[in-house]
Amino acid sequence: MYKYLDKVNSPKDIKNMSIEELDLLAKDIRKFLVRSVSKTGGHLASNLGVVELTLALHKVFDSPKDKIVWDVGHQSYVHKIITGRKDKFNTLRQLDGMSGFPKEKESCHDIIDTGHSSTSISTAVGLACARDIKGEDGSVIAVIGDGSITGGMALEAINQLGYIKNDMIIILNDNEMSIDKNVGGMSTYMSSLIRNSKVHKMKGEVDRILNMTSTGGQISRAASRLTDTIMYSFVPQECAFFDSIGVKYYGPIDGHNISDLIACLKNAKERKGPMLLHVITKKGKGYRYAEEHPDKYHGVSKFDIREGVQPSGKKSISAAVGEKLSQMACVDDRIVAITAAMPSGTGLNIFEKNHPNRYYDVGIAEQHAVAFSAGLAKNGMKPYFAVYSSFLQRGYDQVLHDVCITGKNVTFLIDRAGLVGNDGETHHGEFDLSYLNSIPGITVMAPKDTKELMYMMDLSLEIDGPCAIRYPRGNSYELNTGCYGKIKVGTYEILKEGEDTVILAIGDMVKNALEAAESLEKEGISVGVVNARFLKPVDEKILDEVFSKYKNIVTVEDNIIVGGFGSRILQYASEKEYNNKVINIALPERFITHGGCDELQELAGISVNKIAERIKKI
Amino acid sequence: MYKYLDKVNSPKDIKNMSIEELDLLAKDIRKFLVRSVSKTGGHLASNLGVVELTLALHKVFDSPKDKIVWDVGHQSYVHKIITGRKDKFNTLRQLDGMSGFPKEKESCHDIIDTGHSSTSISTAVGLACARDIKGEDGSVIAVIGDGSITGGMALEAINQLGYIKNDMIIILNDNEMSIDKNVGGMSTYMSSLIRNSKVHKMKGEVDRILNMTSTGGQISRAASRLTDTIMYSFVPQECAFFDSIGVKYYGPIDGHNISDLIACLKNAKERKGPMLLHVITKKGKGYRYAEEHPDKYHGVSKFDIREGVQPSGKKSISAAVGEKLSQMACVDDRIVAITAAMPSGTGLNIFEKNHPNRYYDVGIAEQHAVAFSAGLAKNGMKPYFAVYSSFLQRGYDQVLHDVCITGKNVTFLIDRAGLVGNDGETHHGEFDLSYLNSIPGITVMAPKDTKELMYMMDLSLEIDGPCAIRYPRGNSYELNTGCYGKIKVGTYEILKEGEDTVILAIGDMVKNALEAAESLEKEGISVGVVNARFLKPVDEKILDEVFSKYKNIVTVEDNIIVGGFGSRILQYASEKEYNNKVINIALPERFITHGGCDELQELAGISVNKIAERIKKI
Repeated sequence: MYKYLDKVNSPKDIKNMSIEELDLLAKDIRKFLVRSVSKTGGHLASNLGVVELTLALHKVFDSPKDKIVWDVGHQSYVHKIITGRKDKFNTLRQLDGMSGFPKEKESCHDIIDTGHSSTSISTAVGLACARDIKGEDGSVIAVIGDGSITGGMALEAINQLGYIKNDMIIILNDNEMSIDKNVGGMSTYMSSLIRNSKVHKMKGEVDRILNMTSTGGQISRAASRLTDTIMYSFVPQECAFFDSIGVKYYGPIDGHNISDLIACLKNAKERKGPMLLHVITKKGKGYRYAEEHPDKYHGVSKFDIREGVQPSGKKSISAAVGEKLSQMACVDDRIVAITAAMPSGTGLNIFEKNHPNRYYDVGIAEQHAVAFSAGLAKNGMKPYFAVYSSFLQRGYDQVLHDVCITGKNVTFLIDRAGLVGNDGETHHGEFDLSYLNSIPGITVMAPKDTKELMYMMDLSLEIDGPCAIRYPRGNSYELNTGCYGKIKVGTYEILKEGEDTVILAIGDMVKNALEAAESLEKEGISVGVVNARFLKPVDEKILDEVFSKYKNIVTVEDNIIVGGFGSRILQYASEKEYNNKVINIALPERFITHGGCDELQELAGISVNKIAERIKKI
Repeated sequence: MYKYLDKVNSPKDIKNMSIEELDLLAKDIRKFLVRSVSKTGGHLASNLGVVELTLALHKVFDSPKDKIVWDVGHQSYVHKIITGRKDKFNTLRQLDGMSGFPKEKESCHDIIDTGHSSTSISTAVGLACARDIKGEDGSVIAVIGDGSITGGMALEAINQLGYIKNDMIIILNDNEMSIDKNVGGMSTYMSSLIRNSKVHKMKGEVDRILNMTSTGGQISRAASRLTDTIMYSFVPQECAFFDSIGVKYYGPIDGHNISDLIACLKNAKERKGPMLLHVITKKGKGYRYAEEHPDKYHGVSKFDIREGVQPSGKKSISAAVGEKLSQMACVDDRIVAITAAMPSGTGLNIFEKNHPNRYYDVGIAEQHAVAFSAGLAKNGMKPYFAVYSSFLQRGYDQVLHDVCITGKNVTFLIDRAGLVGNDGETHHGEFDLSYLNSIPGITVMAPKDTKELMYMMDLSLEIDGPCAIRYPRGNSYELNTGCYGKIKVGTYEILKEGEDTVILAIGDMVKNALEAAESLEKEGISVGVVNARFLKPVDEKILDEVFSKYKNIVTVEDNIIVGGFGSRILQYASEKEYNNKVINIALPERFITHGGCDELQELAGISVNKIAERIKKI
């Protein structure tokens, strides 16, 4: 039971609420968010930070006629609550349940799907231009974080907007964080804007006087409220960065003061041309643990509200990678580690502690991260760029153009490859085997387990040229099968012999293949299993052996079926004129929704069960 | 015979030259450039613009210890002349000849290969960080144009550089042009910097006084030289944009005054931290035609120096596309055209003339262009983004994430698909069939000729969702074979029946396939030819027919062999359990050098001749 939240089922329900009621509603929403996310898991800190901002937006603007675009979209929970979806929070991020990101299919209030960073201004400019071509009215608002706004495409969009000058509002939601602490010249600058703003200084001065004179009580509170009003009234500050390229800057504004937010947004709604409203929020606001460790509470699993998130006691694959790279760097002083705003997600925080002078967090800037690595490599370093599979898509051209054409000595540690589960479509790492497959000159490997991953990292040191290792999300695991030790480039490993059929499995799918073979064995069907640990170069010796021995070759990968591992094996067979039956088992040719990884594997046809079924059909 | 140029065979040969000698050398170089490029074709205007800048750089810095990185690299001819390659200009951009871009393989002075825009700062920051980790010295200089610097990754790089503060020099070579006239808020701002600089104003004032008082002659000239000195001395101006994010701005400086350039560069060499030197140059400087039409003289074929470049009289495929789209937009007011700084290259300049309010040049910003198109589509428009194949690589993630996940109604007009010839590795459009193949939900087609292309554009209007049409560089052509008329999605066209073997050819390769079949016919070998005009969806009906009728299926595409059209046909055959022999003819799995298109087709095995040979071997 929530006194205020219970009354809200659509944006119109908050239109007539007073500031006091909205403040109380904000409290209800925070309580609801913490309770709800503690049960389902999901993004927490970012949503706690935008409660007042979201309320103010829906109070002042008329969604969906006025269009609110949420960058990345992991901060859209409050928006989902206000727009009639609070009853669906028990299904959050679950199969067939509500997505953790804006989804056009879910609601007319979700203007455009997001998931990756820094897209909101671009799409919003598109919405605004279309509105103006059609001669319609209505506001277009992009809400973007201070981490996302330094992504290259956001700056490209601002550059166009400042030139064409269509009416549009950018809300810069500044919490001085990406998922981790923010970096970059722009971030430093925005912080200085807050510190040096004239009204901020004025407030400091008034506060100082008040502290000297008042003894607390009513006068002091009234005075303090007055200074807040002074601070956050709609005074245009100078912000040369945005002003210079044609987008008028206003702010900074307290993102937790609903009254000020409403006043500012009303004002913004009336003004012409492009503008940027700098709103200061606190990530995790209102839940102590999340305020203290906003990084830890960015995305969480189920947790106990009183205890907060507890360490799982298990080591993630990412942490294993971070540790290993850090150890390698103790011996090899060419090693440099690069992350694009994901030090803890990729495990590089461990590297940072031990080798701060060979560690670079470049911010949300995957394109730059790749080309920057190319520069480091050219000048004698051995750079490792640790990055999620779906985010490396941003650096596709740079992998091809800046790294592979000249064979630069760059290693990509591709985390979150395969299905990632609850984040859904935008986050599955299901394209890397395809997009890397067609780029010449890069060695691409995927280990059967975390132990083999460590040996692949050793191998990467010996490879003088572009190299990628892909591995899944989750905890470290060990299959304890086959050999462990030094790996040679382009070698597979036969894990099990069979009769007519052999499975060539890559990476995480070796586990499923082995289990499928085991279950088939019980039914009297003997199937071979090969750990095909290189997408390329392939192991021609083992392939030729396998194509000679087995009638049926089944490939298994947790990548989209088109153009990945299975397709390479087919092309190999075609080239060598083998007539064996080759069957590709892989993710289907469509985008895959959110849900539990096991459920999704089943749905997509790459679970142990589905692999076994498919083989039985042969 | 060049009095000064003849003396220069390496950077050390200019170290002791006086300013006067360098000025005369600059004249020699311009003469050499115009003569040379008029014979071979190549990039002209950009190189004429950087003669003095390049001389000054090599006078002040010690290449290759000091590292000069040329963004894009089409302006590196003068650098190539100075670094001992003037004798190779007769082989410029020809097979086995000198590349038109910096190539590490060609010279130790070519620090890093370029070709695509906006990479230089990223790689230079990498070079600088590596230098500092190793404790070495030497300057790192990125030379970047005012078009390229607004590309997202350049801004990402500046954001990092302003934060980590390593010593590095960015030279902003500002000629107010990309290939065409520059656009964007930043461009407007940089122009205002030039107009409003204090010294510029001072010069204006002095000029005004001089004009009132002087009657010409020596005094006037001396005074004018004095004001030039005032104007371009190394006075730090204010440029909030760069200064605010931590990169110190200096300028603007006259990029054709060697004396000033040398003074400024010497100064820059001594200073600490990251800085940006704003250098004003004139594209095409010194060759009248090129000065007047720098866009036309950006890249040229052979021409007569006195006459200048003459219209070829032939219509390019790009122009045909621009005209057609413009006509379509007269009837359908949803149509919007988008280019990323390539209005004339893509033919959209024609559209711009007729529909200025539905035309957007977003600058060099392919990522933004794609997501911007998604926003336009979401709000009811029918956007067409015309872009070169190799540059769309920059928007790979946006095609996938912003357009295809939600099935946005965006059409990609993919120009320069296949081999482009003399620009080489970085510019061949040989990956699009692969990178689009693995993205679900996009219709991808390629016409047999320009006439069919027009019908495909008609069809794109009916497709409600993501769609791509790829077509080659060159002049319009018509095969006059098969049907011309309304095309249905996912339909192939049988052009010729054969006996045992059929060629499935896509796009431009239909022409080669037909000619190969014709030549084989003469030798008594009857081969079928199918115009497989859709990469996806495939024409299952015709495929099933063809797989039933023919023993051998040969696919032909001018795309890399991995993961493209041939691989899709192989996967189709595997899925349908066909046992026919399937042979993929495509570009080999390596990067392809520069040269004439015909030579490269022969080398890559997709020429008429090579296709016929391969089929004879079956």
